[in-house]
Amino acid sequence: MIVYEPGDWWKALWHFHKSKTLWVLLGRVALVGLYVAAVAVAQLHYFQFEFEVEREYFSFLGILLSLLLVFRTNTAYDRYYEGRRQWGSLISACRNLAAILGAALPAEAAGHRVFYARMLSNFALALEGHLRENVEYDKLEQVEGVTPEALRDADHLPTKLATLLQASYERLHDAGELQPVHLLQLQPYHGTLLDAASACERIRSTPIPFSYSFFIKGFITVFILMLPFVLLDTYGYFTIPIVLIGAYALLGLELIGEEIENPFRKQSNDLPLTQLANRIRVSVHEALGVDLPGYKKALADLPYTIVH
Amino acid sequence: MIVYEPGDWWKALWHFHKSKTLWVLLGRVALVGLYVAAVAVAQLHYFQFEFEVEREYFSFLGILLSLLLVFRTNTAYDRYYEGRRQWGSLISACRNLAAILGAALPAEAAGHRVFYARMLSNFALALEGHLRENVEYDKLEQVEGVTPEALRDADHLPTKLATLLQASYERLHDAGELQPVHLLQLQPYHGTLLDAASACERIRSTPIPFSYSFFIKGFITVFILMLPFVLLDTYGYFTIPIVLIGAYALLGLELIGEEIENPFRKQSNDLPLTQLANRIRVSVHEALGVDLPGYKKALADLPYTIVH
Amino acid sequence: MIVYEPGDWWKALWHFHKSKTLWVLLGRVALVGLYVAAVAVAQLHYFQFEFEVEREYFSFLGILLSLLLVFRTNTAYDRYYEGRRQWGSLISACRNLAAILGAALPAEAAGHRVFYARMLSNFALALEGHLRENVEYDKLEQVEGVTPEALRDADHLPTKLATLLQASYERLHDAGELQPVHLLQLQPYHGTLLDAASACERIRSTPIPFSYSFFIKGFITVFILMLPFVLLDTYGYFTIPIVLIGAYALLGLELIGEEIENPFRKQSNDLPLTQLANRIRVSVHEALGVDLPGYKKALADLPYTIVH
Amino acid sequence: MIVYEPGDWWKALWHFHKSKTLWVLLGRVALVGLYVAAVAVAQLHYFQFEFEVEREYFSFLGILLSLLLVFRTNTAYDRYYEGRRQWGSLISACRNLAAILGAALPAEAAGHRVFYARMLSNFALALEGHLRENVEYDKLEQVEGVTPEALRDADHLPTKLATLLQASYERLHDAGELQPVHLLQLQPYHGTLLDAASACERIRSTPIPFSYSFFIKGFITVFILMLPFVLLDTYGYFTIPIVLIGAYALLGLELIGEEIENPFRKQSNDLPLTQLANRIRVSVHEALGVDLPGYKKALADLPYTIVH
Amino acid sequence: MIVYEPGDWWKALWHFHKSKTLWVLLGRVALVGLYVAAVAVAQLHYFQFEFEVEREYFSFLGILLSLLLVFRTNTAYDRYYEGRRQWGSLISACRNLAAILGAALPAEAAGHRVFYARMLSNFALALEGHLRENVEYDKLEQVEGVTPEALRDADHLPTKLATLLQASYERLHDAGELQPVHLLQLQPYHGTLLDAASACERIRSTPIPFSYSFFIKGFITVFILMLPFVLLDTYGYFTIPIVLIGAYALLGLELIGEEIENPFRKQSNDLPLTQLANRIRVSVHEALGVDLPGYKKALADLPYTIVH
Repeated sequence: MIVYEPGDWWKALWHFHKSKTLWVLLGRVALVGLYVAAVAVAQLHYFQFEFEVEREYFSFLGILLSLLLVFRTNTAYDRYYEGRRQWGSLISACRNLAAILGAALPAEAAGHRVFYARMLSNFALALEGHLRENVEYDKLEQVEGVTPEALRDADHLPTKLATLLQASYERLHDAGELQPVHLLQLQPYHGTLLDAASACERIRSTPIPFSYSFFIKGFITVFILMLPFVLLDTYGYFTIPIVLIGAYALLGLELIGEEIENPFRKQSNDLPLTQLANRIRVSVHEALGVDLPGYKKALADLPYTIVH
Repeated sequence: MIVYEPGDWWKALWHFHKSKTLWVLLGRVALVGLYVAAVAVAQLHYFQFEFEVEREYFSFLGILLSLLLVFRTNTAYDRYYEGRRQWGSLISACRNLAAILGAALPAEAAGHRVFYARMLSNFALALEGHLRENVEYDKLEQVEGVTPEALRDADHLPTKLATLLQASYERLHDAGELQPVHLLQLQPYHGTLLDAASACERIRSTPIPFSYSFFIKGFITVFILMLPFVLLDTYGYFTIPIVLIGAYALLGLELIGEEIENPFRKQSNDLPLTQLANRIRVSVHEALGVDLPGYKKALADLPYTIVH
Repeated sequence: MIVYEPGDWWKALWHFHKSKTLWVLLGRVALVGLYVAAVAVAQLHYFQFEFEVEREYFSFLGILLSLLLVFRTNTAYDRYYEGRRQWGSLISACRNLAAILGAALPAEAAGHRVFYARMLSNFALALEGHLRENVEYDKLEQVEGVTPEALRDADHLPTKLATLLQASYERLHDAGELQPVHLLQLQPYHGTLLDAASACERIRSTPIPFSYSFFIKGFITVFILMLPFVLLDTYGYFTIPIVLIGAYALLGLELIGEEIENPFRKQSNDLPLTQLANRIRVSVHEALGVDLPGYKKALADLPYTIVH
Repeated sequence: MIVYEPGDWWKALWHFHKSKTLWVLLGRVALVGLYVAAVAVAQLHYFQFEFEVEREYFSFLGILLSLLLVFRTNTAYDRYYEGRRQWGSLISACRNLAAILGAALPAEAAGHRVFYARMLSNFALALEGHLRENVEYDKLEQVEGVTPEALRDADHLPTKLATLLQASYERLHDAGELQPVHLLQLQPYHGTLLDAASACERIRSTPIPFSYSFFIKGFITVFILMLPFVLLDTYGYFTIPIVLIGAYALLGLELIGEEIENPFRKQSNDLPLTQLANRIRVSVHEALGVDLPGYKKALADLPYTIVH
Repeated sequence: MIVYEPGDWWKALWHFHKSKTLWVLLGRVALVGLYVAAVAVAQLHYFQFEFEVEREYFSFLGILLSLLLVFRTNTAYDRYYEGRRQWGSLISACRNLAAILGAALPAEAAGHRVFYARMLSNFALALEGHLRENVEYDKLEQVEGVTPEALRDADHLPTKLATLLQASYERLHDAGELQPVHLLQLQPYHGTLLDAASACERIRSTPIPFSYSFFIKGFITVFILMLPFVLLDTYGYFTIPIVLIGAYALLGLELIGEEIENPFRKQSNDLPLTQLANRIRVSVHEALGVDLPGYKKALADLPYTIVH
């Protein structure tokens, strides 16, 4: 994710080169440029075929395409933002769990406190890795009784961790260290851990339906292929830059839609999951009164302009 | 459901032939082509009737139709996505139920664990079959005390299974194996099973109102029938490909709307319910510590490009 | 509600005559036709007044009107669909209530089981009647201790039934047949009964604000009155069919908006409340283990194309 | 609120004079008429300045303005409808509270029943007054132990009443008349009272941001000031009625947006809060088994066409 | 936040100078003016290059841009309004917490009452400071046992305060002053404190994705740079005011989007967080029966037209 100041146009320009999406867009627009140039040369120098063009119709097709693309981009943005919302509710749930456990456990139960501070941190870190299909088991906090090997064998890592947490509450309850009221206080927040994980998996694994996506791509392709023929007789060689502007707009919207539809990758427009997981780690350690080394705290507030 | 990589236009092209919707669309566009060709030949060769055409008005009608279709497609997409969301919350609820039961039941209560792992798996498999009006009773997990025959006679299979689960919690509670606090922990997630089932039935059984659907179909038909007359005097035989592009856009949107409005069938744009049910089976077995044969685990992550 | 297959255009055509809305629409379009014909004859034969027409402006007005109507129709559809959603959550709540009571009550408490199966069925049937302002007291299930007369006198029937149910839980609790944990399990689903009732009443009693509705009607009227003058000089008598197409689109959208805004009537585009209430009856009887006569079960899945 | 039948255009016309908004709109449109007439006379008789006009550009500006206004109106409608939804959930919460208290309190505790019937009624009446900045303390029901004077001094009346209710549950709990399970049943519905109050205050006190509102007003003003110059050379004196139609559309949308954005006043497009509060009074009295005089019941279903 | 009366156009004009956003907009529009003037002089006096211009195409681009901007502004408005909604639920949660504690704590426990009144007030004040990155520790209420120094060292101030509150409930529970039922009543509202804090942080820290924002800025820039060339041959020097109107509309929408996307600053279009925090302070003191000095009460209802 590129951290930027929305109001500053010049800095935005300066960050431009960091966005891979924008480079891909430039590449596609360049391809269109080659095509338009070829059509223009062929038509103006060789064929000189006479078109009569009725532009209202193309304007109507263009507006239909615009509507489709704007809605499609908005849908993609909703998914991007829902991804962030789910991580927001994960952050809140972890803080609430830590606060309840911090209050319910006796001050001297340092071992339990460390256990929960690390397990909750690990849940966030593991979910980040799970969504990015690259769990870094070595970076997880070491937790007594939960070996990295046991986690590696899990069919579904977040479920495994949530199950271990749930079992621990029950053990403390059986041992009389947590009372029934605490279990009831904990449950809704604990349930949110798996709710957020399922929701993020849903966002990652459910693109817009194939035929819808194909339909839009086909429509854009046909429309751009047609454009030079519609404009050539009026503009001559000026057709080239003019079509490029349209191609920039249409291809750009499509590309941004694709890009932000899955917000869990590590590209420049994706959500900073690593940073969010680190923020959860800082907060749960604080709420449980467990120390966290300064260099780990620092990961929660990176000064870089690109965060993951 | 076709699994695809949104950013890759060439592969999308390659998957094209797998999408039944797109073939139906091609068929309808071809029909329009025949009609336009007939009108063009008749007009240009025989009648040579002079039209004066005012295109602003058709442009306005076209934009109104575009707005209608884009909104209608968006509504259909919302239903598609709500279907997925409901299954997402079903997945999460099943995992939470399994985690709570896994923690609350004593480790040695292997029979109970197997019972819940299978019953929860069956709920998902049965809901999938129920929504597709084809429950495969033989593929359900065998559960002690619940014969397939009893399920076959149920008026409403998901309700039946949820009722059996609810009764089992109560039995364990009466036997002292679950405490009141566990019932309270379980209830919200258990309730979600039937909530998701009702919501999916709602999506399946409530299309957009008949007169709305008819109105849109009528509008598209009239608009496309009119189009060649509006364009013939400018384009001559070029009218044919030009109208086809418009027909592709309008009929395509309508068709995709119809297709994704009911996302529970087994076509290429529908949700992979079977796979999702298999994921639930893997997760609940893991959370309850019950073994699941490898070939059943494999069903949760099929490498095929089309999954059901 | 007309049950139809969205993908089938020919059957849709066949169902056409059953939709009262579409007949009303035809009537209004015919009225517009008379008006346009009169204007056309007057202008072309008698006045022959010369207009110079600037169509961009009318195109802009037409697009503004299109936007308004499409948004208005979407709002109306949201209400239609929210009505269905509320009934979906009512169905789910009734099933959950029946499942909890079925599990908590001892198997031999046949009287209580019958009481709840009938009371929950009656709640759904009574809500249907209440929303349609025509409660059929005779069709309610007979419940011990609740005479139809007592229900007839109720100020607000759904509240009355929910109150009776709530009192019955409490009585069983006092008698030791339900434990506190059961009351807590039941409460959220029981509360949903009145939530759904209030939400449906809200949808029924809150149309879009009067001045908004009047504003749209006024705008459409003025726009259609103006249309022939804008088109006459280009099209002559062809103006008549061309205006009719526009009138079909604009009046149709308005009409469909009005129609589906209140989805609780018994017209062909309204929700099949009777059928949904019958489905609730089947499910709660099954979940409580109470027999229901076959002819009542059959009402839940009518094979007709029009269901209420 | 004007109660009307959406399908009836003639009655709508008849109700027209009752809507203050529509009169204000007519006034503004008349002002625009004076301006256009002045411009037309000046230009056609005195200056005869030659414009060359390019209308595509104005059409684009007009569509941008249309989009803005339609979205703005939709946002305003969402607030109107959310206001209604909040009152709907208030109604439901009050009914549920009354049902729970009616079941939990012994039948002979007539004093408590009267207390709750009146306190819940007062909460609704007071919230209505609070939102309209005009609490009619004398019209509140008389409650033992809660003098009107104490209420007059409250910093925030709804909070005060909710606090008194909460304290009363606790008192009954301490006295053994309510059990812990009842407190847990009551709490979510009781919490909804303040949730609805806060949400309504939010709707009332948060208009769309000033610069957004100003921006739209400025855009409309400039656009309408420009319109006669764009149309004069084509239409001559016909410009006047033609601009008026556009002004009606644009100013009307803006005005309706402003009007329904705050739905808690007593104008003809506002929500009938008084009536809704009276409905709550009827329902809670019924659910608690407390008599309510007939004339108070009648206030819940006024036969007037304008209700507050 | 500027407090204004939506219906009053003249006062809105008068408030104009107070809105920094509108001044920035004027500055940008002026820059565009210089550019257009330069282009106009260069073209009309020196180059006199002949363009042939096809405006349908620019109209289509303009409509695409309009759709993008209107959707983008709406998204920004949704965030503005969600920020307000979160503070609304914070207000409601604080009032409910205070009401429950006020009812559960014995009347003579004045110390506890003061503790909660101040801690809840501080949570709101601290969250306001935290969101504006400027916590005024000195303005927080003094709470026994919680020194400003301890708060200054917190990694995350709202979590710290919520943790302290949670611990205090538990302490009172251990001391027998609160019963388990009270903990269960308190928990959902207490959890809302951190939910609202996380949601507000999400809104503040997640702008729309960089490439989307850059794409829109790039599109506007290219479009406005092109505009004079499209209009010059028709309008000559009139091009200057005409382009300015378009620039006002496009740049204005972009600017307002940026402005209201982050509603937690102290500018004239931001939410009055200070005032809302003061309202919470007044309400929780009242609900807990703790006196609050008049000058602090007054901060909740400032008579100024600009509130923070």
